[in-house]
Amino acid sequence: MLRLGATVNLLLVVLHSCSATSLMSDFLCVQAALAVALNLRTFLQIKPSNNGKVLICLPNIGTSATWETFRLRTLLTLFSDGLDESKSPSPEQMDALKEFAGITTELSATESLGTLAFLYLYLSISAKYGQIPSVEIVAWSELPTGTGLGSSAAYCVCLAAALLTACGAIGCPVEAEKSVVRWPEEEMDLINRWAFRGEQVIHGKPSGVDNSVATWGGVLRFQSGKFTSLKRVPTLRILLTNTKVFRSTKILVASVKDKILKFPAIMNPVLASIDAISHECESVLEAMAESPSQEYYPVLEELFDVNQHHLNVIGAGHSSLDNVCRVTATHGLHSKLTGAGGGGCAITLLRPDIDPLMVEAARQDLNACGFECWETSIGAPGICLHSLSSLKAEVLRIFNSV
Amino acid sequence: MLRLGATVNLLLVVLHSCSATSLMSDFLCVQAALAVALNLRTFLQIKPSNNGKVLICLPNIGTSATWETFRLRTLLTLFSDGLDESKSPSPEQMDALKEFAGITTELSATESLGTLAFLYLYLSISAKYGQIPSVEIVAWSELPTGTGLGSSAAYCVCLAAALLTACGAIGCPVEAEKSVVRWPEEEMDLINRWAFRGEQVIHGKPSGVDNSVATWGGVLRFQSGKFTSLKRVPTLRILLTNTKVFRSTKILVASVKDKILKFPAIMNPVLASIDAISHECESVLEAMAESPSQEYYPVLEELFDVNQHHLNVIGAGHSSLDNVCRVTATHGLHSKLTGAGGGGCAITLLRPDIDPLMVEAARQDLNACGFECWETSIGAPGICLHSLSSLKAEVLRIFNSV
Repeated sequence: MLRLGATVNLLLVVLHSCSATSLMSDFLCVQAALAVALNLRTFLQIKPSNNGKVLICLPNIGTSATWETFRLRTLLTLFSDGLDESKSPSPEQMDALKEFAGITTELSATESLGTLAFLYLYLSISAKYGQIPSVEIVAWSELPTGTGLGSSAAYCVCLAAALLTACGAIGCPVEAEKSVVRWPEEEMDLINRWAFRGEQVIHGKPSGVDNSVATWGGVLRFQSGKFTSLKRVPTLRILLTNTKVFRSTKILVASVKDKILKFPAIMNPVLASIDAISHECESVLEAMAESPSQEYYPVLEELFDVNQHHLNVIGAGHSSLDNVCRVTATHGLHSKLTGAGGGGCAITLLRPDIDPLMVEAARQDLNACGFECWETSIGAPGICLHSLSSLKAEVLRIFNSV
Repeated sequence: MLRLGATVNLLLVVLHSCSATSLMSDFLCVQAALAVALNLRTFLQIKPSNNGKVLICLPNIGTSATWETFRLRTLLTLFSDGLDESKSPSPEQMDALKEFAGITTELSATESLGTLAFLYLYLSISAKYGQIPSVEIVAWSELPTGTGLGSSAAYCVCLAAALLTACGAIGCPVEAEKSVVRWPEEEMDLINRWAFRGEQVIHGKPSGVDNSVATWGGVLRFQSGKFTSLKRVPTLRILLTNTKVFRSTKILVASVKDKILKFPAIMNPVLASIDAISHECESVLEAMAESPSQEYYPVLEELFDVNQHHLNVIGAGHSSLDNVCRVTATHGLHSKLTGAGGGGCAITLLRPDIDPLMVEAARQDLNACGFECWETSIGAPGICLHSLSSLKAEVLRIFNSV
């Protein structure tokens, strides 16, 4: 494991990006869905090294890898074709990277996918914008991986931003007396497009929702394959609960499609209702951003409940998610599944004036079911550049310990 | 309490009718709904007496009343106006009956309503078809009253059939070697129309679904205020669970309407989906009546689940009903609310080949929640005339003990 050196220069940057989740509806269906930024962040530190090597260290999954930059350079020709950042990773590129990284196992292993996404972005960005120098990268997320909340997208967005900054493709924004800064819009867009290619390495055919949310933050409306950022969004407190039930998005999408084909007259109106819920929620969020009145919370809670029933109807539910809803309901709280469903995570809305003891009681009951909870917020900012001094102690400790 | 005499003649008849409940959807909404006959029956025994009195005894609610026939005759003029059986009970008629019966309490008391419905039907039918002689009537139901399963309709159907038979308005069907017989269709229709007037006394503005089901039995499709009997229906085993949570149909209907007005774009598609569920269920029931294959049960179970979610969405649910669903789901069984919802009863579908131990285990778990269960069937026959000798011992015991 590489120890973080004492040298600090312009290239030592810490980026962080948010995780993504569905607030209303679901990405499974063709209807309007709202994707929202979760304030459980992924932090990435990139710093120059002078040992002629490139290091990537991922403490969440206990993996790190080092390569000689001259050896990486031998692969560059394979990536010079893909100068268009809208191109997808080719099977030849993936095979070459797997061989190079010595990955012989099935491609589902998180560490293999994390390594491949890094190599792919490192080489593609180097081929297009010029060789990235010898660097050390540490990426760590507040969320465990594989919870279905787009931690891979946050990782890819951080990687893309760091590598594009390192090779000078985008600037390194500095603003006096600001500890957190962002890139200009067109550079954010470039980061997002490269992050999507990283997501393609990891997921094959990602929707692009997760990386867009991790880049832009806030709330995105997703309809007919297009994303629109909501102009103003409120920050809402939530309790995020991981049921730890494994879900396969692929199997789930297939079973939802089956249900719609089996009972079209029953299911199509439900999709129309889901669409209307997203629109209603969007209006409520915009109104809340204008004036953060308490009166909007009962409406959001009602929309949570209806949406949760509909997601059960289309087959995206799971008894563990129903348990989260039931347990939180005993504390007067409203929950719904988030992400693709079929297991994974649920979110519970917390009113701003909620008694902390009630939140703690709900957490304890959820923990007693074997679930894991985080109190966080949604509507968080996307990718940011962060000064080292303004980092939380926990993050600094992680970076100092690798 | 009147003791049943030893005299048996043609006027000693025992009628029984079924309770009614919604199989799919709900009577609350304007969409198609399926109402189904529950094989939990109401038994009525009418026999002539020679004491110049009329007696009505209702052991379920521990009430009985006796009037001199000559005193009843004094009210007849008030009822001679209403010779058209499609006319509703007038406020003047109701006031006169309350005064006559000495009812000073609020009209919601079950015993008062049961007595008033009897007096109303006795006098209206006497005024139209000729004086009913001195009779003794005992009516008892397998279901407790007030569970929202149309026990009042079964009572009114039995009363109408008994009183119409007693005054000769309809015949007393006798078929050799048949212990259970029914009236011809046009007489059934007359029974149903008079039963509806009894229901109007009890409920004010009943939908007419319950008395129609109690008259005709089987499965009725209810749409735009019209009922159609399904030609052939299968008999399905169910577990009926009374949550004992009080529900007010009136309050519930108002809150459902509010929800639809508040979120029309979200709720109207749900109503459309509910409509489609009823149609799908109707097709499945017809197919099951043709060939009782096991393959239909998973479809019915899926429709139960979806319908239950939708009824929750429109606001007809209750946490006690969710509990029934959850408890039975742990035994692999599928349940939904029945009747108006908001409390009251749930039905659980039992496959024909289900292990009796599993049913018993589910019952015990439901009893442990404080609920009461009955194993019965749906798709039962409506009003029948029954020979005394073919009655169940439990019913005979009730009739012999009053």
